[in-house]
Amino acid sequence: MNLEGLRVMGIDPGLTRCGLSLVQAGRGRAVLPVAVGVVRTPTGAELSERLLRLSHAVTEWMDEYHPDVVAIERLFERGNVSTVMHTAHAVGVLVLAAAERNIPVHMYTPSEVKKAISGNGRADKRQMTIMITRILGLSEPPKPADAADALALAVCHCWRAPLLERTRIYQGG
Amino acid sequence: MNLEGLRVMGIDPGLTRCGLSLVQAGRGRAVLPVAVGVVRTPTGAELSERLLRLSHAVTEWMDEYHPDVVAIERLFERGNVSTVMHTAHAVGVLVLAAAERNIPVHMYTPSEVKKAISGNGRADKRQMTIMITRILGLSEPPKPADAADALALAVCHCWRAPLLERTRIYQGG
Repeated sequence: MNLEGLRVMGIDPGLTRCGLSLVQAGRGRAVLPVAVGVVRTPTGAELSERLLRLSHAVTEWMDEYHPDVVAIERLFERGNVSTVMHTAHAVGVLVLAAAERNIPVHMYTPSEVKKAISGNGRADKRQMTIMITRILGLSEPPKPADAADALALAVCHCWRAPLLERTRIYQGG
Repeated sequence: MNLEGLRVMGIDPGLTRCGLSLVQAGRGRAVLPVAVGVVRTPTGAELSERLLRLSHAVTEWMDEYHPDVVAIERLFERGNVSTVMHTAHAVGVLVLAAAERNIPVHMYTPSEVKKAISGNGRADKRQMTIMITRILGLSEPPKPADAADALALAVCHCWRAPLLERTRIYQGG
């Protein structure tokens, strides 16, 4: 399966900060960075206002960069309850934006992303940032962390997609 | 504050079953039922497909019934993790639909709804169904439970909105 040219949007979901990235698969394991950014919504605003702003931002990205596929972090129920719920609401809005444009969505757990990028499912933020900077040939580490995570998700998909495809074919899916 | 004529949409959020209702506030504590239903999405389908179907269904309702306000259940992190996450994704999509139409959203916990409808924050399903059937003057109990819950949420808002409004004025909000 040749992925060359595939445009992958990586999303590190969140309501206060949501990392967005776009990368393009090159030859072999090469991945080219196209764009990276963070969408913020004000913590003091109503939930509906925040979801609306997030939806507008992500749809602008999708309409500008035309990703072929979206890779988004799979949530776990952990940490602060209110934050998890807010992030889960955000995921609903982000996945909907992709669905409305008929863009397939793949979800990866943080440890799947870490393993794909660094070979270690428990890599720390520093290791992940070093790896993602090297893989994408960036002149400096991406900031903030949400931006780096969004890039890592997109690269993870580029490297795992051929494997997923083979598995699907073997399973007759 | 006179609410007469206010159209309230009640939503019992869910991805497998989502209860929707529309009621209209009458004189005093009178509430008139306008519509009630349940949207289902297939459990075997992809998350993005399910969110898209839910979004289409709720926006059709909003565009047909033109609610002035939406009352939706506030989620707690409890029960099956995967179900809670799915419901939280659904809430994101439902609240976004209201926000896109500039319809204000109010959230109520299950115990707030039970207290408003039956006077008892721990009322069981049977008591709630009896009360909501009586309050709305229905010829038979609404089914399934999600439909009854959606009606209860809408009635809860009709009765609590004047109180919320007074509180807001006293607080200078």
